[in-house]
Amino acid sequence: MDRRSFLKNSALGGTAAAATTLAAPAYAQGKRTLRLVTSVPEGFAVFDDAAQYFTDAVNAMSENITIQKNPAGTLVGAFEVFDAVTAGQADLYHSADYYFGGQHPGYYFFTAVPFGGTGQELMNWYLHDGGAELHDELGEIFGLKSFLAGNTGLQPGGWFNKEINSAEDLQGLKFRMPGLGGRALGLTGASVQNVPGGEIYQALSSGSIDGAEWIGPFADERLGLQEVCEFYYTAGFHEPGSALSCAFNRDVFNELDAADQKIVEIAAQATHHWSLAQSYANNAAALERLQSGGTKLMTFPDDVWEAFGKGSQEALDEHMGDELYARIRESFNASLKKSSKWTSVSDDAYRQQRDRVLG
Amino acid sequence: MDRRSFLKNSALGGTAAAATTLAAPAYAQGKRTLRLVTSVPEGFAVFDDAAQYFTDAVNAMSENITIQKNPAGTLVGAFEVFDAVTAGQADLYHSADYYFGGQHPGYYFFTAVPFGGTGQELMNWYLHDGGAELHDELGEIFGLKSFLAGNTGLQPGGWFNKEINSAEDLQGLKFRMPGLGGRALGLTGASVQNVPGGEIYQALSSGSIDGAEWIGPFADERLGLQEVCEFYYTAGFHEPGSALSCAFNRDVFNELDAADQKIVEIAAQATHHWSLAQSYANNAAALERLQSGGTKLMTFPDDVWEAFGKGSQEALDEHMGDELYARIRESFNASLKKSSKWTSVSDDAYRQQRDRVLG
Repeated sequence: MDRRSFLKNSALGGTAAAATTLAAPAYAQGKRTLRLVTSVPEGFAVFDDAAQYFTDAVNAMSENITIQKNPAGTLVGAFEVFDAVTAGQADLYHSADYYFGGQHPGYYFFTAVPFGGTGQELMNWYLHDGGAELHDELGEIFGLKSFLAGNTGLQPGGWFNKEINSAEDLQGLKFRMPGLGGRALGLTGASVQNVPGGEIYQALSSGSIDGAEWIGPFADERLGLQEVCEFYYTAGFHEPGSALSCAFNRDVFNELDAADQKIVEIAAQATHHWSLAQSYANNAAALERLQSGGTKLMTFPDDVWEAFGKGSQEALDEHMGDELYARIRESFNASLKKSSKWTSVSDDAYRQQRDRVLG
Repeated sequence: MDRRSFLKNSALGGTAAAATTLAAPAYAQGKRTLRLVTSVPEGFAVFDDAAQYFTDAVNAMSENITIQKNPAGTLVGAFEVFDAVTAGQADLYHSADYYFGGQHPGYYFFTAVPFGGTGQELMNWYLHDGGAELHDELGEIFGLKSFLAGNTGLQPGGWFNKEINSAEDLQGLKFRMPGLGGRALGLTGASVQNVPGGEIYQALSSGSIDGAEWIGPFADERLGLQEVCEFYYTAGFHEPGSALSCAFNRDVFNELDAADQKIVEIAAQATHHWSLAQSYANNAAALERLQSGGTKLMTFPDDVWEAFGKGSQEALDEHMGDELYARIRESFNASLKKSSKWTSVSDDAYRQQRDRVLG
C-alpha cells in the first residue's frame, strides 16, 4: 500500500478542506459524538472493515459516546488525519501509522518494518514486552493516545511479469513498492517506482513497470493483477504483518470517563484480533481462486532474500540518529528474537509435521 | 493439563458443596453482581490470568454489571462449573471447554483437538468461518452462551527421561497425557497414565512414569520438571493451541442489556488476544531459561509423528456418530485446510527466510 493510492482513491484526496475546529463537543441523543477520520474510502477492504468494526463495537458498548466515521476526503484528506487529530480538528483517526514516519520514524514499527514481525509477533511485543508503552511515549510528543486496531497480515512479495532467478535480476528492475520496504528494495539495486493503487494494473499491462506489490491475495484479486501478471511471489520481506491504529486526540481521550477509556482500548484490541483473523481467512480463500485461475505461485531464491535482508538493515539503520527510534527498535528486536525462537520449535515445527503427515 | 490436576490443586476440589441457587439477582453499589466460577485456583498461570483480565475488563466497562470471580472449590468444584452454570447456580464460568467433552464431544473443538489448529487458526475459523455460530448451537443445547476467552498456545510434546528414536519406542511407554490427545497416544501403543499435575514431578522422579506433558515452558518450569527430565520434546501433536472459554447461563445473558451483551463479547475477544500473546511471550522467555539450565530440546522423528497422526484420526473418528460433532469437525477442517495453505506460503516461508538470513 502507499500514500498516493489513497489520495487517488478517495473522493477529495489531499485537497479536502480541513474541518473547522470544534468550539465545543458535539452531542446527539444525549451522547457525545466523536469524529473519526480515516485514510481510506468507505468500504475499502481490510482497512475500512477494521474501522467499521471498531466504531460499531464502541457505539454498542458506550452509554456516553458515539463515534462517527468519516472516510478519507470527507472531513480531511487521507493523509491529513494525523495533523487533524493532533490539532483537535477531528477527535480520532483510524489509519496505518507508518504513513506518519515523516512525523517520527518510530511510527514505522507500529505498522510494519521490513524483516520485522508477523501480526502475532507484533502483538506479543505490543501487549507484553513494552510495545504499547512506547506507542504511548510517541503519542505524548504529538498529543495522541494510540491503540493498534487492525492488521492486514503478511503482504506477499508481489506480482512479476518475469521470473526472478537471482539477486542479479533485481538490478534495474522497475518495481512498485512504498515505504521502508521500498527504500530497502532500492538499496538492492532495483528501480523503485511510485505508482498509485488505481494505476498499477495499467502500469503492469503497458510494461512501464516489471512488477508491483499491493496488499495480499484478497485485495490484489480485486485490482485484477492476476490478469496482467503470471507470477505471484510469496512470501515478501517488506510488510510481514501490517497493523492499523486508532489514535485519539489526547485531550479528548483524557476527558472520557474511565469506562469509556477502557471501552476504546478493549474495542481496539478485539478489532486487531478480528481483523488479523479476517486477513488470514480472506487471503486463504482468494489464494485458492487465484491458483485455480492459473496464477503461478513462486518463491524468491535464497540470494534474493539475502539481498532483501541487507537492504532492510541499511534502510532501518538510516534513522538510528533518533534516540526514541533506536529505543523502539531495540525493544522490538529483543521481543522478536525471543518469541521467534519459541514459535520455530512450537507452531512452525508442528505445522510442518501436520502438513507432511496429513498431506 | 487434565481434570484431576485441577481437583488436586484447588482448595476444595470436586467435593465442594454446590452453591445455593440465587432466588434473585444480587446487586452491589447499584450494579448487578454476576458470579463467575472457574476451574483453577486463584493466580493459576495462563488460566486465571485470562479469567482475571476478562473480569477486570468487563467491570471497568460496564455501568450495570460487576463480575465476581470465584476460584475452583469456593462456590463449586473445578469440574462442576458447567453443570452449575447450566442449572443457574452460578451465572457464568471460565474454563476449558474440552473438560466438558463428556457432556458433548463437540466441545473438544472449542479448546483443542490433536492435529488441530494453532491459536490463530482456531480464531480464523471461530470469527470468520462459522466456528462461533457452532459454539452457539452447542450452547443452546445446554442453556449456555459461550465465547472464547484465553489461549495457552501450542503445548509441547513433553518431558522424557529417555530419547524417542522411533515409533517402536512408544510401545508400552508410560506417559502422562489427558484428553483426546491421550486417547490418540494410547492408540499408538503407549501406556497412557492419569497423573495429577501436583504429582507429575514425583512420578517422573521415582520412575513410575517415563514421561509427561503439562502446558508449556512457562508453566512446566514452575513445576520443576526440568529437574527430573533431561529431554524436552517440542512441538507436540495433542494441543496445538488450547482455547479457554467463558460461558454464561443463557437466561442471564439474555437479561443483560444490549450494551452489556456487547461488552462481554468484546472483552472475551480481547482477552483471547491478550492471553495468546502472553503465552508466546512467557513461553519464549522460559524456554531460554530452561535451555540455559541444561534442558535438551528434542524433536520427534518423522515416523513418530506419523503414529501420532494415525492415532489422532482414530481418536477423532470415535465420535463421528454424533451429527453435530460431525458438522463441527467438517467446518473446522475446511477452514483449517484453507488457512493453513496460505499461512505456509506467507508467515512460514517468511519466518524461515528471516531466521536463515538474520541468523
